[in-house]
Amino acid sequence: MTTVSIVGGSGYGGGELLRLLLGHPQVNMKQVTSRSHVGEYVYQVHPNLRKRSQLKFSDPSQLEPVDVLFLAQPHGQAQQHIEHYSSLAPRIIDLSADFRLRDAADYEKWYGEKHSAPEWLSKFVYGLPELHREKISKASYISGVGCNATACNLALLPLIQADLLDLSARAIVEIKVGSSEGGAEGNSGSLHAERANVIRTFSAFGHRHTAEVIQEMGIKDISLTMTAVDLVRGVLATAHARVKQGTATKDLWKAYRAVANENPFVRVVKEQRGIYRVPEPKILAGSNYADLGFELDESNGHIVSMCAIDNLMKGASGSAVQCMNLMMGWDETLGLEFAGLHPI
Amino acid sequence: MTTVSIVGGSGYGGGELLRLLLGHPQVNMKQVTSRSHVGEYVYQVHPNLRKRSQLKFSDPSQLEPVDVLFLAQPHGQAQQHIEHYSSLAPRIIDLSADFRLRDAADYEKWYGEKHSAPEWLSKFVYGLPELHREKISKASYISGVGCNATACNLALLPLIQADLLDLSARAIVEIKVGSSEGGAEGNSGSLHAERANVIRTFSAFGHRHTAEVIQEMGIKDISLTMTAVDLVRGVLATAHARVKQGTATKDLWKAYRAVANENPFVRVVKEQRGIYRVPEPKILAGSNYADLGFELDESNGHIVSMCAIDNLMKGASGSAVQCMNLMMGWDETLGLEFAGLHPI
Amino acid sequence: MTTVSIVGGSGYGGGELLRLLLGHPQVNMKQVTSRSHVGEYVYQVHPNLRKRSQLKFSDPSQLEPVDVLFLAQPHGQAQQHIEHYSSLAPRIIDLSADFRLRDAADYEKWYGEKHSAPEWLSKFVYGLPELHREKISKASYISGVGCNATACNLALLPLIQADLLDLSARAIVEIKVGSSEGGAEGNSGSLHAERANVIRTFSAFGHRHTAEVIQEMGIKDISLTMTAVDLVRGVLATAHARVKQGTATKDLWKAYRAVANENPFVRVVKEQRGIYRVPEPKILAGSNYADLGFELDESNGHIVSMCAIDNLMKGASGSAVQCMNLMMGWDETLGLEFAGLHPI
Amino acid sequence: MTTVSIVGGSGYGGGELLRLLLGHPQVNMKQVTSRSHVGEYVYQVHPNLRKRSQLKFSDPSQLEPVDVLFLAQPHGQAQQHIEHYSSLAPRIIDLSADFRLRDAADYEKWYGEKHSAPEWLSKFVYGLPELHREKISKASYISGVGCNATACNLALLPLIQADLLDLSARAIVEIKVGSSEGGAEGNSGSLHAERANVIRTFSAFGHRHTAEVIQEMGIKDISLTMTAVDLVRGVLATAHARVKQGTATKDLWKAYRAVANENPFVRVVKEQRGIYRVPEPKILAGSNYADLGFELDESNGHIVSMCAIDNLMKGASGSAVQCMNLMMGWDETLGLEFAGLHPI
Repeated sequence: MTTVSIVGGSGYGGGELLRLLLGHPQVNMKQVTSRSHVGEYVYQVHPNLRKRSQLKFSDPSQLEPVDVLFLAQPHGQAQQHIEHYSSLAPRIIDLSADFRLRDAADYEKWYGEKHSAPEWLSKFVYGLPELHREKISKASYISGVGCNATACNLALLPLIQADLLDLSARAIVEIKVGSSEGGAEGNSGSLHAERANVIRTFSAFGHRHTAEVIQEMGIKDISLTMTAVDLVRGVLATAHARVKQGTATKDLWKAYRAVANENPFVRVVKEQRGIYRVPEPKILAGSNYADLGFELDESNGHIVSMCAIDNLMKGASGSAVQCMNLMMGWDETLGLEFAGLHPI
Repeated sequence: MTTVSIVGGSGYGGGELLRLLLGHPQVNMKQVTSRSHVGEYVYQVHPNLRKRSQLKFSDPSQLEPVDVLFLAQPHGQAQQHIEHYSSLAPRIIDLSADFRLRDAADYEKWYGEKHSAPEWLSKFVYGLPELHREKISKASYISGVGCNATACNLALLPLIQADLLDLSARAIVEIKVGSSEGGAEGNSGSLHAERANVIRTFSAFGHRHTAEVIQEMGIKDISLTMTAVDLVRGVLATAHARVKQGTATKDLWKAYRAVANENPFVRVVKEQRGIYRVPEPKILAGSNYADLGFELDESNGHIVSMCAIDNLMKGASGSAVQCMNLMMGWDETLGLEFAGLHPI
Repeated sequence: MTTVSIVGGSGYGGGELLRLLLGHPQVNMKQVTSRSHVGEYVYQVHPNLRKRSQLKFSDPSQLEPVDVLFLAQPHGQAQQHIEHYSSLAPRIIDLSADFRLRDAADYEKWYGEKHSAPEWLSKFVYGLPELHREKISKASYISGVGCNATACNLALLPLIQADLLDLSARAIVEIKVGSSEGGAEGNSGSLHAERANVIRTFSAFGHRHTAEVIQEMGIKDISLTMTAVDLVRGVLATAHARVKQGTATKDLWKAYRAVANENPFVRVVKEQRGIYRVPEPKILAGSNYADLGFELDESNGHIVSMCAIDNLMKGASGSAVQCMNLMMGWDETLGLEFAGLHPI
Repeated sequence: MTTVSIVGGSGYGGGELLRLLLGHPQVNMKQVTSRSHVGEYVYQVHPNLRKRSQLKFSDPSQLEPVDVLFLAQPHGQAQQHIEHYSSLAPRIIDLSADFRLRDAADYEKWYGEKHSAPEWLSKFVYGLPELHREKISKASYISGVGCNATACNLALLPLIQADLLDLSARAIVEIKVGSSEGGAEGNSGSLHAERANVIRTFSAFGHRHTAEVIQEMGIKDISLTMTAVDLVRGVLATAHARVKQGTATKDLWKAYRAVANENPFVRVVKEQRGIYRVPEPKILAGSNYADLGFELDESNGHIVSMCAIDNLMKGASGSAVQCMNLMMGWDETLGLEFAGLHPI
């Protein structure tokens, strides 16, 4: 068995990671740290884990060596302690934004402060298996992915991979998100009475995850708009772009199917009947799938490409576990078999 | 025009009061105070009031004399400053719990601390027009009502008024409530991600509003159970009790209709077909109606009596305005004409 | 008093119209027809109207002459009986799509069938006061507006009116909508268990309301994408477009404020702090306001313009009543004073 | 591998069963029938199963012999074809209400029609492992359980098992339920616009599941009240009853812990702090747990006992699979390992 610990396990991402790792057949959970819940049972914070684990939250200062260390802290923490963490574990997967960008200048531009461990940036591989499966398999350090960036990147991936996009036209991505993205801390706008029933565009431009899309997709003229809707888990990214002249619907089918065939957690959803004809995060809660779909206006080349994910799974903890599986040479889907629910 | 001010206007009750008073044909809104929002436009906190009022929040210390003063502060404040407030206004309506109970010992028992102005308790009339219309018309000081207590009291009123209840049997009231009851401050359990989709019984026994039901209905053996459900506005009280032997459904119809006939904001909802056959808070958002319904098991005298209200209207600010109307000798329904929406 | 009747009053649009007209100080409601509910009280279908009206649904064949006739039937009905209706009332306001488009060929293109009364198309004025206040004041026949088209048109209006839009760039409008748009009939996907928690893009291109935007805004290269979210009432249109070179944020402020100043039901929402910084349908349920907001990326001229409305009010029945007010020479806001609720 | 088929696999219960059986390590799914979806892929109806199974719905008339046959049809079907089904499979688990009651007269009383195969009633074991584990292990025919009955029965089980209940006092059970209980067909009140935001008491007395509680718990004076709330999956039963004189909180702890210790899917939730202090269906979606909790008013013996379940899991398909596991001599928890999600 491989020993694994989580630093920062009381947040939503950490809790989801814990759920996955407790159910993982190759993993022996060692420690979960939390500054504010030291000594409490993990199920007191994550009530779904009751009767699943008698683990208690440890003090971060008591962290012991393990085979794989997951970091699930707020942004800005991992970079300050990365030397220490690397002395405790040969393999690290960091779910925060600290090591996602390759370029320290980009980090400063998008996050508004200097990176405190820029020399580490090049050691990390961006942890989206659909983009970097090979590198991840050989890596020691993996960065997590932004949930919104992931929905964008996967909505665009078939188009980029098949080189079907007209990059001279701006890509506009409208992203709708659930409340779990706000984290377990929240703010005054996260109160149920204020957050229920919303269609709230909280970022018209300049969301930080844009940087990950630019870096990973190589698209410069792209804009992300973020809208909160009434849902706990889920992201739908709807990318509006232009395909190269002559691109037909059949070319797109081919491109999307190729991505689905190469990746165990990608599915194409494009049905002519039934209720679920397009990708929908509703049915993905707890699953690691990314559902892709598209519509092409052949008269003018306008493509609408969609990707639905569970932000805490494929957009965070699920992808992180998938990376661990690749890193360790295990089956990529291990511990990630949950199909999702219908109805829900 | 009658001048009116609100002390503590940034909470949900205060905001609803402000909305009602701004639309009231006999009222001239003078001041709205808020400790934390001094100088801000009221519409910055209550966005529905944009383009309705250019009023700004005043500092509580700058409060000026008016004809009617509404107090909408957290519990415990009004009793400390009641002498001061009474020097500023001949008529006071306090929405908090401070002056609801007639007996200082009861206050101490249910609220866990000594009342700081017990000599004022007898000067206040409990502000539920359906119970005390006459007294309210002649009063100078009115206490607000607990939202859950109001749903209970009105569910029981026809039975008490027609003397149909067998008081030797315990009355059990199950109350389901929306998130606006938690107030604009909330707590960690009020976050949308934690509060959405809940059926959460947060109080099995001993809710403070029980004291108001005991006092106003004269029922001693009664128990209130509080369950939070996914809704912003609304309360449904379902009272289980036993009717006196020989009571038939037609007696109940008579009793319920009598209450509806005497009270402009009470309706009986008991239909044999259609979607809305029973009282439902869903359609009451923003309205001052209390919808009553019942079912009797004639085989054993078990009655299920229901009352649905909007907790911020009939359960707080709506009743308060209704009291002002009575106090001032105006039409009881003035400024409270909104019918509610369907669907919503 | 002006006599008014509604043809087709059992749907959501008809019910909302009825609520507004029953509360209108200048109107005497005469008849409300419904094929399937003849003889039932209107409050059995629209439960919010209980104790407001003892009106019963009439058989459509018993329709009597009135001063103003509202048609609230499913699409395709009004055009078949318009001669008959016009013999009964000198003024008609049709909420359906039958008379929105000026050109019979456009109707056939977007609705897939020949118009059965094309000679009537030119007699109708498109019923959005913000666009055609003068014409509406003098008209006898008014067409309703598409709810999604209205959100689009108002999002674009300040830009068109101030001539700030670069029409060589495609405009992409992402529209998020509540479930009441689906109407009282619904379909299998409208069931709560399937419709709750959705982010469902049901139309990527070619929604019929696009025709109204092209006609009214004069923008040819425009695309509407429709996404259902978990909400009953409300539409948010987010228009992505390009402003003319040199356009600055201050020019946009001027353009948006101009529209808000000219129109009693338009507000600009663009705050730097608080919870409600942008237009949100959440707080508009039951109100006739259209809230506009914008963000400009000055580096490249990309504008995100937003409009939030209640689809049953400003997007349907509210605008229809506003048109009646103008037609009759009354204050434009009569019967439409409800401010909306917070929280809700 | 054990071959298994499902009759009636297009409903919610059938879909959930299919999800569980496809993931079950000992099962080989053979056929899933549906009258209305013959030839369609199961994932077209149950979109969560995309990429999980290429199974198509079979015509019910083509049903082939298997080791275990699950019946998931609407009530009334199984009893008509039970002879046929029993010729195809040595073991049958019927999720409908057809074989839950032991007494044909009870069936007629509660379901309003004669049972068409009364001689089969005694062959079936009531399929709640927490009540009949031993019998189930040896049975050939298992009946499913009513979801609401299950929540009631498990709320009462610790009290009955430890003989702590004063049966001279009426037990009143208030049950709050999600929309998936209404099934995939629904009715006009199931439309999202009508069903969202509800607190709708659709049955004050006489719900059919009462019969299962009377039969299994041996409590005669019991009443179930059913209230629909805004949630897709989940039931919370809150039972109000009286404990025998002298019963203290510590006795209850003992009784509840005993049930949790004997049953792998029962947990006791009774915390002094944190957000999740009581049983809540919110966190149980997709899990087979039944969470129990209680509060005792020691002054008068009034106990509030709560049980939360996922109606489609512990209340239907999950219990059915648990029964199969027992019947086949496998580990009781096989295929039912999903922990549930937090937040959701």
